[in-house]
Amino acid sequence: MRPSGRTASQIRPVTITRQFTCHAEGSVLIEFGNTKVICNATVEEGVPRFMKGQGKGWITAEYSMLPRATHTRSAREAARGKQGGRTLEIQRLIARSLRAAVDLSILGENTITVDCDVIQADGGTRTASITGACVALVDALTHMRSKGIIKANPLKHMIAALSVGIYEGSAIADLEYVEDSAAETDMNVVMTETGQLIEVQGTAEGEPFSFDELNEMMTIAKAGLMELFEAQKLALS
Amino acid sequence: MRPSGRTASQIRPVTITRQFTCHAEGSVLIEFGNTKVICNATVEEGVPRFMKGQGKGWITAEYSMLPRATHTRSAREAARGKQGGRTLEIQRLIARSLRAAVDLSILGENTITVDCDVIQADGGTRTASITGACVALVDALTHMRSKGIIKANPLKHMIAALSVGIYEGSAIADLEYVEDSAAETDMNVVMTETGQLIEVQGTAEGEPFSFDELNEMMTIAKAGLMELFEAQKLALS
Amino acid sequence: MRPSGRTASQIRPVTITRQFTCHAEGSVLIEFGNTKVICNATVEEGVPRFMKGQGKGWITAEYSMLPRATHTRSAREAARGKQGGRTLEIQRLIARSLRAAVDLSILGENTITVDCDVIQADGGTRTASITGACVALVDALTHMRSKGIIKANPLKHMIAALSVGIYEGSAIADLEYVEDSAAETDMNVVMTETGQLIEVQGTAEGEPFSFDELNEMMTIAKAGLMELFEAQKLALS
Amino acid sequence: MRPSGRTASQIRPVTITRQFTCHAEGSVLIEFGNTKVICNATVEEGVPRFMKGQGKGWITAEYSMLPRATHTRSAREAARGKQGGRTLEIQRLIARSLRAAVDLSILGENTITVDCDVIQADGGTRTASITGACVALVDALTHMRSKGIIKANPLKHMIAALSVGIYEGSAIADLEYVEDSAAETDMNVVMTETGQLIEVQGTAEGEPFSFDELNEMMTIAKAGLMELFEAQKLALS
Amino acid sequence: MRPSGRTASQIRPVTITRQFTCHAEGSVLIEFGNTKVICNATVEEGVPRFMKGQGKGWITAEYSMLPRATHTRSAREAARGKQGGRTLEIQRLIARSLRAAVDLSILGENTITVDCDVIQADGGTRTASITGACVALVDALTHMRSKGIIKANPLKHMIAALSVGIYEGSAIADLEYVEDSAAETDMNVVMTETGQLIEVQGTAEGEPFSFDELNEMMTIAKAGLMELFEAQKLALS
Amino acid sequence: MRPSGRTASQIRPVTITRQFTCHAEGSVLIEFGNTKVICNATVEEGVPRFMKGQGKGWITAEYSMLPRATHTRSAREAARGKQGGRTLEIQRLIARSLRAAVDLSILGENTITVDCDVIQADGGTRTASITGACVALVDALTHMRSKGIIKANPLKHMIAALSVGIYEGSAIADLEYVEDSAAETDMNVVMTETGQLIEVQGTAEGEPFSFDELNEMMTIAKAGLMELFEAQKLALS
Repeated sequence: MRPSGRTASQIRPVTITRQFTCHAEGSVLIEFGNTKVICNATVEEGVPRFMKGQGKGWITAEYSMLPRATHTRSAREAARGKQGGRTLEIQRLIARSLRAAVDLSILGENTITVDCDVIQADGGTRTASITGACVALVDALTHMRSKGIIKANPLKHMIAALSVGIYEGSAIADLEYVEDSAAETDMNVVMTETGQLIEVQGTAEGEPFSFDELNEMMTIAKAGLMELFEAQKLALS
Repeated sequence: MRPSGRTASQIRPVTITRQFTCHAEGSVLIEFGNTKVICNATVEEGVPRFMKGQGKGWITAEYSMLPRATHTRSAREAARGKQGGRTLEIQRLIARSLRAAVDLSILGENTITVDCDVIQADGGTRTASITGACVALVDALTHMRSKGIIKANPLKHMIAALSVGIYEGSAIADLEYVEDSAAETDMNVVMTETGQLIEVQGTAEGEPFSFDELNEMMTIAKAGLMELFEAQKLALS
Repeated sequence: MRPSGRTASQIRPVTITRQFTCHAEGSVLIEFGNTKVICNATVEEGVPRFMKGQGKGWITAEYSMLPRATHTRSAREAARGKQGGRTLEIQRLIARSLRAAVDLSILGENTITVDCDVIQADGGTRTASITGACVALVDALTHMRSKGIIKANPLKHMIAALSVGIYEGSAIADLEYVEDSAAETDMNVVMTETGQLIEVQGTAEGEPFSFDELNEMMTIAKAGLMELFEAQKLALS
Repeated sequence: MRPSGRTASQIRPVTITRQFTCHAEGSVLIEFGNTKVICNATVEEGVPRFMKGQGKGWITAEYSMLPRATHTRSAREAARGKQGGRTLEIQRLIARSLRAAVDLSILGENTITVDCDVIQADGGTRTASITGACVALVDALTHMRSKGIIKANPLKHMIAALSVGIYEGSAIADLEYVEDSAAETDMNVVMTETGQLIEVQGTAEGEPFSFDELNEMMTIAKAGLMELFEAQKLALS
Repeated sequence: MRPSGRTASQIRPVTITRQFTCHAEGSVLIEFGNTKVICNATVEEGVPRFMKGQGKGWITAEYSMLPRATHTRSAREAARGKQGGRTLEIQRLIARSLRAAVDLSILGENTITVDCDVIQADGGTRTASITGACVALVDALTHMRSKGIIKANPLKHMIAALSVGIYEGSAIADLEYVEDSAAETDMNVVMTETGQLIEVQGTAEGEPFSFDELNEMMTIAKAGLMELFEAQKLALS
Repeated sequence: MRPSGRTASQIRPVTITRQFTCHAEGSVLIEFGNTKVICNATVEEGVPRFMKGQGKGWITAEYSMLPRATHTRSAREAARGKQGGRTLEIQRLIARSLRAAVDLSILGENTITVDCDVIQADGGTRTASITGACVALVDALTHMRSKGIIKANPLKHMIAALSVGIYEGSAIADLEYVEDSAAETDMNVVMTETGQLIEVQGTAEGEPFSFDELNEMMTIAKAGLMELFEAQKLALS
């Protein structure tokens, strides 16, 4: 029995609100249960220096949590003067995942920056960020086509992300905070809508996990991710 | 005629949503028209070093804008590695204003930190922050009394803040972005519900302003602030 | 009775020494009683990036206190690795005030940087800085004309600044440290020599202040500022 | 055919030199072919603040590359003033992995810091670091027992790490730089000597990878890791 | 013939003004010709952590130049966010030199910080700083005795510093800026009043220098330093 | 009798290993007894901004110690976010010394960066760095000629560096850590192979030193440096 009362493979209710703020080319509020993230996609001309002159675009991401998105207040990274290792790790993951969804050569020398700001956290903030960021990215690409900035759709496939884990010896999906903090293993899976893998990051928090448990987590992840793709489609329709 | 179509003294519709996020002791979403700020008040035991041993509490504030709260994306301060001068100036103003609303000696050696995070900006983000922060502060104080952390109510009076300015020679209230960027003078007024002044900050952006114009702005500010106190009362009732 | 023994409206003796150091295009030592600030104006070709191509000039300012300008030693900001909020706030105020004194379009694409370094502090360092910086600015502009860098005088009017406050219920002018630390309200007023306002920044340190007290402080400020303009004129003659 | 001429599952020659430098409690030079990393384990009394009073120890790690460990010179992180995201990510991985090898409650309130400094890089620096760090850790633990700092051996099992990837559609082990930069997928696997998993981090650099390819990589990783455990045993015997 | 018109061994006029500012326990303005440095000595209870519990005192120093102390404006270190290598090198030299003048065990667990702030630079700022700092130090020690903080005089001997160099093949003393920038070799010598050496730092800026030239510079330095000790004595009498 | 058992003028065994790592244009491991430093010289096109357009090259250096190069672990500078004063001082010394060995006008607009990374420290790390860096520099220059980047050899003369000191009243050469920490005076001498001086930096750590002692140290330094030039020649032959 999970602390959340959910079945092993049951994910939380997912809500995706587009045009959540008014300025960004793509703006999404995504909710995985009590986890809430604002994903804003910004389109800007030009690319970072290391990409210049190749005729290709770039996608990057930044991630942050409001200081009181969590049970106790965390120090604001801007006040501490640097982004922590966890933040850098997550925003690198979001950006890599989004780049894997897009044909950068169709994007032209433009940059899309997706800001994922967690306003309330209850586990799975990085997977909610990726899943919501992909919807914001789609809106930004639509904006670019409508403005004539790009001629074709660079999107290769939707992507989504889900956390899975081993909790009391069984694989469970979409861990909330209380489950996450008690899980033996925590794994994040980023997948395309065609069932191909973009990222797999599994970490033994307590006991090591077996090769069989890895397979169980992968199976349960795939099922949950398919539900996330449905939620994305619904939001975009 | 104002760009916003409002009369000179007309403020924007104000919406105050309490318990906007679930973890903070006080959590408010305040909207002045299209300006939207999340104000989260956190209660923590202890005070900063320079306050220790006096038996008094402390109130501090932090302010930030999501990178895409504005028309174009601003660099994230956490990524740049420091908070800008404007940010520091605003959060010092918010904190000073809140401290003027509270009897710190009743607060005990506890600290309340109010985080004001602008998720959408259309002028007046600092005044909306102060006005919303005061409501979040009240909820945090109520929480403290219900938990027995404090015995009496340290609130001396509600405070609220409003921007006023000189636009095409006339005083107007609650400037939105298009008005703010065209105004000759911009002034922020923080007042108590009893009509006493906490802060007055007037700046000639273009032409200097006269002593008479200062008085006109003060008059129009007072009227608008009284409406803000009504909105706070309604939200807290 | 003021701690300083002065009458309510009496300002401290003001001394302005031009050409205080030998390298700067304008170099002034200004003294408001025991408050002593070196104001050095530097002329440089070019403007910051955001101003390029507009044919206009720029004026900026930096402010600092020697670590032992005060009763006890403050940590050196260069050693701490960042400028504090108070420093940034003051140097933004100085720069805004100076820009309001000058027609930037006559300045050409040149930048004037005014460094205000407090060597001894006894209250009113920011108002002394502004008042002295304006004299250094005039010398720098004269230098520019003599070198043929500019054709006309961009100065629109002299500016000066004075602190006023409410001390034991009465408005007083030009607070020294002991008065400042005991005052209920502290206000800084930046004015043009023609009696128009550039900046008004009033803060209730203890009790809030009334609209009437605001007016009293403004009246007393105006009188004192007129004496400062006399001191500037004398120095420049 | 791999660029390195190796078979798909063939790992590079592994050399482990203990007591490589003279000051550290454990000091190892590990070589995976041309990749060379110095792993120094330092024993210090006390634990970080968040661990105090629990009677348990702590293990942490730092990672760096000499500026010219690579084909072209990278900027020195100490000179740039911060560690990059890649560095933080890797040192967090090393530390998590090492902590999974040790029973921290037997370690007492002591901290072991393992510094992994890459002096020459040719792919797989993080996996070489983990594999070498575990040997340095063993020497540090032996030192602690010989000095009577700990009474029992806190080591639960050896750990080692190996990179695997998909290169031209096939799974290969222990990628060197030329293979790594051409691989479609790159995966790092950290395992215990008993064949249990500590970390699995797979990333699609080019094309996404299938669930079957994940399994192939895991199989080939396990075989290579078993060879690394042999190399560790040999070095420690 | 020197650019300054001085003879090879002639130093510039030296002026030492004590009690230059009013707050510091020792405050000196020292002038070596056009080089002007404020040296403020601050006495504080306690010592840095690495000195605690030894019953000994500590002396440290900080050095800075006002941005426009020089011909062209240098960026303010506080604004750049760090002290440069030259600054750190100089303040380490000043502090080491001062510590060599004092018996730290007589100082008790107190710290003296000497701030050397260059307000006008014309070569030799570090040697003027050391020479002036020693006078400020003496005043601070006198203050400590008068307050009963120390029982005996910890001063072992006065110290002073002088720059010498090789200019067009000859040794010269106390280089001004134009001489310094054209000299082949620049050397700073810190000496006690009894003619013993504290620091010798010689650098070939252009051509290497011979062992004989080293001796010539040392001879000329000694003579000039003796004049500096006279100036110190005069100021302190 | 020296703690090391060596005679006063006896230097430690010197080992110079070229091509120590495989990527750098010049790569040297230099050992002065137990002090071991990797010196990597990197050739890059272009020069820093302040050198542009003069047709001359530039040589710079960076210095670091592995955290556990020393008896106890030092904090990693990259993690602390800045390089310490000692580091900056040493790398400025190394760079100045190397530039004195080369005719920059023959180098063309190219930059050579020499990274000196101490992997094991036992006194004299800066002198070993300079001595090894010069050999790495020679290899980098040879590389440049072989690639046709430069037409002539810009090397004016070899340079080397040695530490000397006053230990129990006598001058000794090449101090190891135990000698260095007990020495009254520590001096570093950088010399050309033709016996001309580049840098002389003597510091009284305990008692001041006399003019005679300075001469004794210089004499003993010269003898030791001649041995270092032999070791360099041997390595390069």
